[in-house]
Order: sequence, then structure tokens, then C-alpha cells
Amino acid sequence: MTSLIQNIAVDCADPYRLATFWSHVLGRPIHPDNEPGDEEVGVMLDDAQELLFISVPEPKTVKNRLHLCLRPHQLREQEVAELLRSGATMVDDRRNEDGTGWAVLADPEGNEFCVLRSAAERGR
Amino acid sequence: MTSLIQNIAVDCADPYRLATFWSHVLGRPIHPDNEPGDEEVGVMLDDAQELLFISVPEPKTVKNRLHLCLRPHQLREQEVAELLRSGATMVDDRRNEDGTGWAVLADPEGNEFCVLRSAAERGR
Repeated sequence: MTSLIQNIAVDCADPYRLATFWSHVLGRPIHPDNEPGDEEVGVMLDDAQELLFISVPEPKTVKNRLHLCLRPHQLREQEVAELLRSGATMVDDRRNEDGTGWAVLADPEGNEFCVLRSAAERGR
Repeated sequence: MTSLIQNIAVDCADPYRLATFWSHVLGRPIHPDNEPGDEEVGVMLDDAQELLFISVPEPKTVKNRLHLCLRPHQLREQEVAELLRSGATMVDDRRNEDGTGWAVLADPEGNEFCVLRSAAERGR
């Protein structure tokens, strides 16, 4: 008994809008068959796996029990700044003065995610 | 601006117990540095990515807004039966008589996940 993780599915109000944000964050394309108004819109993480945004009627009510932790390619500070300019909001700034820590941001529908240090910063 | 998904993080009551369940489901090892009682326990999805279980004080209250969709290696019916014997529960059976559809199960802490058809079944 074993399975692959095929999709990471995210309930949301506007799948194409949220997929567009995450496509930008991850540098990965929206599935070519998807278009605005679709009930399900996938961001292709690789050939097999999608971050799949699904339209649901109910709004977000509490902190998500699952969240993504991101490892930026560039410095964490630059990534956080660009994310905030791209429609993310700061939820909980846990960055420390010594460079450790992380930032908790939220996407345009309020889904929390963490921004860790880049691999270069972590290796110092 | 781009980031990798480093971790899929899951808030829970008992990280090692839940990681043990998911290690079994995914056929992937628990991080060798982790042990029962740890506040954070990772299931190593590959060399870079972890399904990371994090201890939190608050219980689950509503349907998770993020969930994993699994693609079993064996037939969907066999996988669902083994998952139910391994501590999962059936939440919403959306399997159809023609073989399409999926099953929504929950892990031992109530986190919903979907079991899709295997690749072989999907290709028919």
C-alpha cells in the first residue's frame, strides 16, 4: 500500500485568480487547458503534480491546518518584499535579527504560507 | 521572484503518530533525526521536500481548506480498503459504479485526503 501525492488541493473562491498568484510565486505554469471561470485550476508543479485550486462556496474561517513552506531562490528579505508587492500580506513576522526565523504571509484569499531562508542563507 | 515548496506542513496533536501513518501511506521514511515526542516530525518525500507534522495546541475544527490527493500504485479499491484498516476513516465516498470518482478519507486526526484512481485505472 503506497500512493503518490498527485495534487495539493486548495479550496478557494476564485481558482484562476489564486492560481495566477501561485504561478507567479512558484515560477510554474497554469495548466494550458485552464482559463478564468474554471471550477478547478491547476498550477503544474512538475509533469505529474499540481497545486490545484478548487472553487468552494464556503469562505475561509480559521487558520489553515495545512500550509506550504517556501524556500526562496533569492534572499528571504527580497522574496518577502516582492511577495508583499504581489498581493500577499504579512500574518506573523518571525524573522530574527540574527537572520534565522521565517515570515508567515497569506495569499490573496488569506491562506497562510511560510517563507524560509534561502539555501544560501541557511548554509552560512 | 520564485520559491520551491520545501515543506507541506500539517498542524496536529501528535506529530510522530501522524507521521507514522503518512509514512506508511506514502511509503516514505520518517526523518532519521525524529523520534516520538518531537514537536516537529518530517516524512521525507524526496531529498529536498518533507511532509512536516507540527504540534499545535488547538484542535481541528472545520474541514481543511488544503488537502492532499493521492494516486495509488495499486487499484483504488484495494488502496481504500487498506487505508481503512490502517486507521483512516471514510468521510465522503464519491466512487461511481463506472469506476470513475474518488474517495474522501480522513487520517487519524481527521485531516481529509482524496484517493483517486490508479494510473492504470485512469488509462482505461
